[in-house]
Amino acid sequence: MNLAASEPVLIGIDWGTSSLRAFLIGAGGEVLDQVSKPEGIMHIKNGDFEGSFRDLIGPWGAALGLPVIASGMITSRNGWIETPYVSVPSGVQDLANALVTHRMSDGTEVTFVTGMTTDHGGTPDVMRGEETQIIGASALGMSDGIFVLPGTHSKWVTVCDNCIENYSTFMTGEVFAALRQHTILATLIEDGPFHEGAFRMGCAAGVAEGGKLLHDLFGVRTLPLFGKITNSMVEDYLSGLLIGAEIKGTDDALIGGPVIIVGCDDLADRYEIALNAAGLKTKRAPDDIVAKGHFLIAQAAGLL
Amino acid sequence: MNLAASEPVLIGIDWGTSSLRAFLIGAGGEVLDQVSKPEGIMHIKNGDFEGSFRDLIGPWGAALGLPVIASGMITSRNGWIETPYVSVPSGVQDLANALVTHRMSDGTEVTFVTGMTTDHGGTPDVMRGEETQIIGASALGMSDGIFVLPGTHSKWVTVCDNCIENYSTFMTGEVFAALRQHTILATLIEDGPFHEGAFRMGCAAGVAEGGKLLHDLFGVRTLPLFGKITNSMVEDYLSGLLIGAEIKGTDDALIGGPVIIVGCDDLADRYEIALNAAGLKTKRAPDDIVAKGHFLIAQAAGLL
Repeated sequence: MNLAASEPVLIGIDWGTSSLRAFLIGAGGEVLDQVSKPEGIMHIKNGDFEGSFRDLIGPWGAALGLPVIASGMITSRNGWIETPYVSVPSGVQDLANALVTHRMSDGTEVTFVTGMTTDHGGTPDVMRGEETQIIGASALGMSDGIFVLPGTHSKWVTVCDNCIENYSTFMTGEVFAALRQHTILATLIEDGPFHEGAFRMGCAAGVAEGGKLLHDLFGVRTLPLFGKITNSMVEDYLSGLLIGAEIKGTDDALIGGPVIIVGCDDLADRYEIALNAAGLKTKRAPDDIVAKGHFLIAQAAGLL
Repeated sequence: MNLAASEPVLIGIDWGTSSLRAFLIGAGGEVLDQVSKPEGIMHIKNGDFEGSFRDLIGPWGAALGLPVIASGMITSRNGWIETPYVSVPSGVQDLANALVTHRMSDGTEVTFVTGMTTDHGGTPDVMRGEETQIIGASALGMSDGIFVLPGTHSKWVTVCDNCIENYSTFMTGEVFAALRQHTILATLIEDGPFHEGAFRMGCAAGVAEGGKLLHDLFGVRTLPLFGKITNSMVEDYLSGLLIGAEIKGTDDALIGGPVIIVGCDDLADRYEIALNAAGLKTKRAPDDIVAKGHFLIAQAAGLL
């Protein structure tokens, strides 16, 4: 941490289901320091979110008294404070207007970014946390376009002039894990390094399918049975099939332009390969843009 | 067993992954007696298929010496004898010509019906056992049409003039079980009696979707979150969504005419509701038609 370069003005927290990240943010929105812990909301004992919060920012003693803004599943039913959702379309000012402030037992206040909801033909969709990442992307000049945020429940988001117009969630990551571990496919899979060829084969099958995923999944079994792929290729083929089916399943409108992939991990790399193979251009945004989102929302709310 | 009515001429065995059924079959193809055991091929200790077979037909001492014909996963890589597949299109004579006979240590012979394979754009598909059921249906006057055999890996089969023209496998049952037990959906589900309304809602969503299953699955989570369905309805909604998606995923050509549902259990009932809701007429065939198939194939092979 180099406090000489810039005084911290804000603490931003991205508190998800399985992990927790905190950012010490400077006057220009820059990240001065950050910490992460595996204490997602499912791992907090006895609902002691306050205790977790104090442990987290303890090393930042000098920062106590700064405004604190938090986003993510922390505002869900299993989180610290359940907040209502704002609806699409919403931009930074809408999110700033909907902030919910909670006062802790020692008087410290934490301000929560609410989640965002939309509706697809009567079926609701929800996000908590991704909206803040998307808002943050505007600080990198990415204020329009199609975003994908890969993960357990990946999100496809349409953004126009800094405003989140609509989005769709896909259960791709969780379906992959359940199929990988708890079906006959588990018995076929041999571990090995990433096999890009198998992944690309899967992508092609997934992109080609139109509502036939339940059938194409059986092909993940028969291809190795007939020696068309090896058992060490099965996992990457399955991964490609699901990501390809996800791309196919996004609305045509949603994938008109280049797609901005949020993240810099192995999964983001896979989405880049799959999108490019499907003929779509891609850009990348780091997933710590969430801190930029915290900064911009706090600024719009007059907290700074 | 009423041996006075008809002398037995054949023993037919349907030996699957999780269960085993044997039929004592009379000269007219009628079932004189049957037994079933939970000793599917995954439950045979030390590969002692012979021992299991002797235990099974032991009570039919008088029947020893009759020809024995067996179908199902018993001819797969994890079965007793792995047999090659015949290809589509195939009818009763093709299956009879491809029988594989195995002589046991005591000289008893068992004759295996091979499985059947097809290919969808380079991806193989396989069945072992269902082909014998389909052949058997012709004894009930069902020699043409579209068949569905619901199950862990449900099969959709096109039959023309007693010949199996083509088919597709859907991993619907296994995907349901993996999602039901090993994803966030498991936390939402409350047990309860069959909720036909929720099942029909799911069917409608599944039939409407075009490649969006990974997205629609997230709706199974959000509908109870927003109070649009109760937690005791979630399981039937999920079941409907997957069966509806399966129906949507069958080729249009495959679902032109009435669909013959093989089976008489709860799952067959669900397929009937789903198919009727999708505007398709249905007929039912009992799943012991497999014994008729054994009889017809054995007859065509000159075993009787």
